[in-house]
Amino acid sequence: MAGVDARTDALQRRASATDGVIALGGGLPNPALFPRARFGRAVYEALHEPSGRALQYDWPEGSPVVRAAIARDLRARGADVVEDDVLVTSGAQQALSIAVELMFAPGDRVLVGASTYPGFLDVLNARWIRPTREATPPLAGVYAIPAIGNPTGRALRDEQRAHVLALARASVPVIEDDAYADLRFDGPPGRPLIADARESVYHVGTFSKTLSPGLRVGWLVPPRARRDDALEAKRRLDLQTNGLAQAILEAYFRRADHARQLARARAFYARRAERLVQACRKHLPELRFEEPEGGFSLFLESDLESDLEGDDRDLLETAIAHGVAFDPGSLFRPDGAGATVAMRLTFSIAKPFLFEEGVSRLARSCRSDSSI
Amino acid sequence: MAGVDARTDALQRRASATDGVIALGGGLPNPALFPRARFGRAVYEALHEPSGRALQYDWPEGSPVVRAAIARDLRARGADVVEDDVLVTSGAQQALSIAVELMFAPGDRVLVGASTYPGFLDVLNARWIRPTREATPPLAGVYAIPAIGNPTGRALRDEQRAHVLALARASVPVIEDDAYADLRFDGPPGRPLIADARESVYHVGTFSKTLSPGLRVGWLVPPRARRDDALEAKRRLDLQTNGLAQAILEAYFRRADHARQLARARAFYARRAERLVQACRKHLPELRFEEPEGGFSLFLESDLESDLEGDDRDLLETAIAHGVAFDPGSLFRPDGAGATVAMRLTFSIAKPFLFEEGVSRLARSCRSDSSI
Repeated sequence: MAGVDARTDALQRRASATDGVIALGGGLPNPALFPRARFGRAVYEALHEPSGRALQYDWPEGSPVVRAAIARDLRARGADVVEDDVLVTSGAQQALSIAVELMFAPGDRVLVGASTYPGFLDVLNARWIRPTREATPPLAGVYAIPAIGNPTGRALRDEQRAHVLALARASVPVIEDDAYADLRFDGPPGRPLIADARESVYHVGTFSKTLSPGLRVGWLVPPRARRDDALEAKRRLDLQTNGLAQAILEAYFRRADHARQLARARAFYARRAERLVQACRKHLPELRFEEPEGGFSLFLESDLESDLEGDDRDLLETAIAHGVAFDPGSLFRPDGAGATVAMRLTFSIAKPFLFEEGVSRLARSCRSDSSI
Repeated sequence: MAGVDARTDALQRRASATDGVIALGGGLPNPALFPRARFGRAVYEALHEPSGRALQYDWPEGSPVVRAAIARDLRARGADVVEDDVLVTSGAQQALSIAVELMFAPGDRVLVGASTYPGFLDVLNARWIRPTREATPPLAGVYAIPAIGNPTGRALRDEQRAHVLALARASVPVIEDDAYADLRFDGPPGRPLIADARESVYHVGTFSKTLSPGLRVGWLVPPRARRDDALEAKRRLDLQTNGLAQAILEAYFRRADHARQLARARAFYARRAERLVQACRKHLPELRFEEPEGGFSLFLESDLESDLEGDDRDLLETAIAHGVAFDPGSLFRPDGAGATVAMRLTFSIAKPFLFEEGVSRLARSCRSDSSI
């Protein structure tokens, strides 16, 4: 079972602390898109509100205004969700933690994608819950990233989506991780799984990718029957999500044109994705990938017949020495290192004019280290 | 095992939503003390920093500047703590959750005070860990609030403190909850338990009581041998504490005179404590309490021979109808309802000129409902 390990953590810290390393790893949104001026005005209002509410304790479910905005958005996508169904969380990661706590017991098997979000695998590992690729019973639940996958940047294929929904309708609970849904290059996200299986889906989202991760504001929409349990878990974990960030979001939603912010972000990341795709085709033709449909990254994999094999953390070490960083593919794999070497490359953060140089450094690292 | 239950939650929400109810319940700091102007300048700086760091993802351990400030303060109190030992958490509640996760297993017995923090009891309950008043082996650990207790506002007595330290030195792990330590009326806090048993104590603190709860910034200093486990748990729970609040604290510690903020808060709450003590002596002489030495509250208990008995939530319901709210004492008791009726009264939030009226309403509630 993969997830973030100590060696990868140390390598990632080294890469970020080394001057001149081109960052094609890390899932960071680009700070150029943070709506700082709007946030500045929002903070000013929040701090000067007479009650000081933004700085005070609040109820664990979070701001009614923020919850209403989230519910409105989900209703527009076809889901039966009202303000009271939404729980504001300290980022999507906390929403995943709460969902896992409510849904699974040690020893349970949970169906996940062939490549998936390492932070979710970490939550499973800590509770002795087993991620699996086999949809055979007994299955305690499913973790799906249907709109835009991490690390692949791809939506679930129609038959995969239909399979997950069939399981949900057969009362297998499903976690729907919608973290990147708003960043589909071709426009606003479509119908979420929760629209078609309201009482089996734990829907998870976040403002981290579209507005700012530092705010730490995400959400969980659990099945209605589990709402009180989720609220209790939230209170136990950290009482409430930070009030200042929620006050900022309240003012932001009152004033800003969020649809325009999203449209700008989609276009911004789409242009970058295209440039990284071109650089990969040119310099790393021996690795295969699917073109991302959204998000921050693409997922490169070697062929089974490739010379490239071994521990992808060794390759990362070589790559850092060559001046480029990526995310080892094994992190994203439920079974750890697979038969092939893989890497997540992100196009969200490095300067686009460095993409080609970054990928060519990566190509040199692969060649200098083909049996790593 | 007590802790917050659904009925109390509903009553507290009703009290806060009802006009004219004098709030002698709830552990809220007074918003008059929130350093809003300083926070405003700090936010401005944080938002305009070119890297946008405050809004970006960060490492799970939190801001080095904030950690250094916490470590410096603990060193000044005699503890061997450096920046790297400190983990910034989403409030003290998260620090308690992480400590419990690292320390205890289902079925364990943990020594707690006769009255203690309900949020901690909630964490134990959810994990099937049993709070106990008996210091007999086997004991998996101790939860102590040595500097200023919640709900009592009192420090541990010397012999209690010596007992906890003797257990710690005998390798029984101890959680030291220092949430109110900076609000001792007689001045800065003394030596923490962690100074005398570095490798057995999980030290927990927060800026919620002294600066602002809405920031959700607290800390955990685990034994050094458990630092990596604590960091992993933090990452799993919510990746990192919110960056904007940490950036605000960085700027605050750079510029503000924190010692003066604390001195002002101590004097502010000490004056209020005195007025509430007087009101209780005058209107509720049949209930006993110890004068608070700090914090936000005092803890009233009926005598065993008193007419007042039964479920203190019934009394709260009556009190709300009389226009006053308090916190039911049973919340704070590891064994739930005790033989006596008790209540936490807070002096931190209501207007002091209303204390007398509030307590006299409470007295009328008790008398109208003496066998509740």
